[in-house]
Amino acid sequence: MPIITLTTDFGVGSHYVGAMKGAILSINPLVTIVDITHAVPAQDIAAGALVLEDTTRWFPKDTIHVAVIDPGVGTDRSIIYARIGTQQFIAPDNGLLSRLMAATKPSMVTRVTEAQYRLPQVSNTFHGRDIMGPAAAHLSMGVHPRRLGPAVRVLNQFDSPLPQMADAKILGEVMAIDSFGNLITNIVDANLAGKPRDEHVCVVCGLYETVGIHRTYGEQAPGSLLALIGSSGRLELAIVGDNAAKRLGVSVGTPVVVAWE
Amino acid sequence: MPIITLTTDFGVGSHYVGAMKGAILSINPLVTIVDITHAVPAQDIAAGALVLEDTTRWFPKDTIHVAVIDPGVGTDRSIIYARIGTQQFIAPDNGLLSRLMAATKPSMVTRVTEAQYRLPQVSNTFHGRDIMGPAAAHLSMGVHPRRLGPAVRVLNQFDSPLPQMADAKILGEVMAIDSFGNLITNIVDANLAGKPRDEHVCVVCGLYETVGIHRTYGEQAPGSLLALIGSSGRLELAIVGDNAAKRLGVSVGTPVVVAWE
Amino acid sequence: MPIITLTTDFGVGSHYVGAMKGAILSINPLVTIVDITHAVPAQDIAAGALVLEDTTRWFPKDTIHVAVIDPGVGTDRSIIYARIGTQQFIAPDNGLLSRLMAATKPSMVTRVTEAQYRLPQVSNTFHGRDIMGPAAAHLSMGVHPRRLGPAVRVLNQFDSPLPQMADAKILGEVMAIDSFGNLITNIVDANLAGKPRDEHVCVVCGLYETVGIHRTYGEQAPGSLLALIGSSGRLELAIVGDNAAKRLGVSVGTPVVVAWE
Repeated sequence: MPIITLTTDFGVGSHYVGAMKGAILSINPLVTIVDITHAVPAQDIAAGALVLEDTTRWFPKDTIHVAVIDPGVGTDRSIIYARIGTQQFIAPDNGLLSRLMAATKPSMVTRVTEAQYRLPQVSNTFHGRDIMGPAAAHLSMGVHPRRLGPAVRVLNQFDSPLPQMADAKILGEVMAIDSFGNLITNIVDANLAGKPRDEHVCVVCGLYETVGIHRTYGEQAPGSLLALIGSSGRLELAIVGDNAAKRLGVSVGTPVVVAWE
Repeated sequence: MPIITLTTDFGVGSHYVGAMKGAILSINPLVTIVDITHAVPAQDIAAGALVLEDTTRWFPKDTIHVAVIDPGVGTDRSIIYARIGTQQFIAPDNGLLSRLMAATKPSMVTRVTEAQYRLPQVSNTFHGRDIMGPAAAHLSMGVHPRRLGPAVRVLNQFDSPLPQMADAKILGEVMAIDSFGNLITNIVDANLAGKPRDEHVCVVCGLYETVGIHRTYGEQAPGSLLALIGSSGRLELAIVGDNAAKRLGVSVGTPVVVAWE
Repeated sequence: MPIITLTTDFGVGSHYVGAMKGAILSINPLVTIVDITHAVPAQDIAAGALVLEDTTRWFPKDTIHVAVIDPGVGTDRSIIYARIGTQQFIAPDNGLLSRLMAATKPSMVTRVTEAQYRLPQVSNTFHGRDIMGPAAAHLSMGVHPRRLGPAVRVLNQFDSPLPQMADAKILGEVMAIDSFGNLITNIVDANLAGKPRDEHVCVVCGLYETVGIHRTYGEQAPGSLLALIGSSGRLELAIVGDNAAKRLGVSVGTPVVVAWE
């Protein structure tokens, strides 16, 4: 029972998603389509790469993930198929898979070029509907990825800023803001290994600071700023029962310092 | 053909929903997942309880409803399974099922504790993905609810404010605002039984009032404030072709009086 | 494997959609339900008609499309079934199918009246859940459309403003704004046939103008206003990497002139 997921920047409630699902179901009416999100900020490849890293690993083996954050649609950028670990991906070759590839080298990459696996008429502006969705639908019918087009050696990939580690300090930054307004940093659980998480550690974000790294949101009083390891293993800053990003006026890129005394 | 529904406060377009669906499909790739809503206001248990009451009764027998409005995630609050009427529920034990239980006593309640029915690694902050979704997926595979953990006798439950009935008057309040801006009150159709609904009844909400209780939105001219019995059997106030909540500046808790002359 | 799609103005995240899906699945638990969009502006029949035109043609033969933009719910407006081309529709008879019918005459139209194909209790305000969804579910089970009710001869239909063609000029207007803020006009690819699309053509929208009709968004520098033929074959105006509607302050109905020198 094949599954195709969709991750796009079309916007919540966009009917373009509907058209894309129709094109997929016209090829394989039996496939299960799952929306991951359509709320990636418009043309924000870095945000899309983070969503793919945090969500796709939870899906069954061989799931086909279609990601359409595609500012270069209609230019000469390629569309690629990549197998990374147990999961399959179809996306423009613009760095969307960077975070996944940083963790696991793809075991197969092809360029999606074969005309028989796209719609008969291809627009210049909607390759999600006309090329990427149909290629995923054909894969879900059993077409071998090698048949989509020629092998590719090098993909476009960007580096994500890594936290800088010092003896008694980690210098990181806010990497994303989630739907609760929690501030997701580029500092991960492993960066804190062996260090105390009690009152001897202080986390500073912009003008604000909080003491200790907690286990969960419910450990502090409503209105408190607290630091914790979130559900994707990243250090987060949250305000209990409130929206930290709005309350603190913090945006992506704000420095975050973890310091031990 | 089992069905799992999802009701959360993750926010429209949240990719956390995608991760949760992946975790469910990894256990049962054949289950049908239906989104009820992810737009319950953050941590608003009362609003979530109302959504569950108004939507879950329309689903087929044995549908498994997962509700994740969970401000206490990672604390010692329990996660529970409850069978209420023909429907099944998995939710934190924080009152989310209060409205359903007020109408129908659960026929079975267990605490969801067994490690074999959750993900191998459980985070402190995302039990929807790590515990509740997986438990629902295992139920959908035929696991008996008794195997999820020990029986429970008492659940947390809150009382909803009931309207006060007098001879020629009902005192109620605005309980929710729907996606059209209609004001949903805690006064129900049965409260009006045997009373006139014509020009002899007046409905007052805050500073505004309207005469008569109508059958449908289309019975009055655009721009009119009107009272009617909505699709869940509750008295509503609406402005024809407009957003009553925004136009009148009314919020949840505003008193509503129905008075007969 | 039947498919039912949903297009409504219930609002993104509305739990009314969940209730409607429950009612459908209670009749046919095996049907695949696909959301096209729930973000049609409230009661905007023209916008809904455009969404249906642009999306439903991508779906497999015999797909059943339920459209609930229904300001007249509960009045004496009819609910109709129409077969148009290879697709099937259930909608209020208020003009929602106008754009589809302008292109292709329906091959069968019936009024949806038979009580056995609706819920046992029908509310006055939610016919999507009580009549339209259930009728679609029964169709998906194999009920013949003729059994839904009597044949209908004439449907309500509105005319869409067509562009006015002159020798060296086309006078059109902005017909819709998509989720990226691109301005979708009522001028289509065929209106430009045989005319130059290079620096000899100028497109004027309100106070703004741009030269040439391009193939895709990526052909110009970020921040540029450009005209192109969008994915539905319509002339669009876009700002590369930005939201044209917000940036230019343009709304639906703004005149658009294409002029050749």
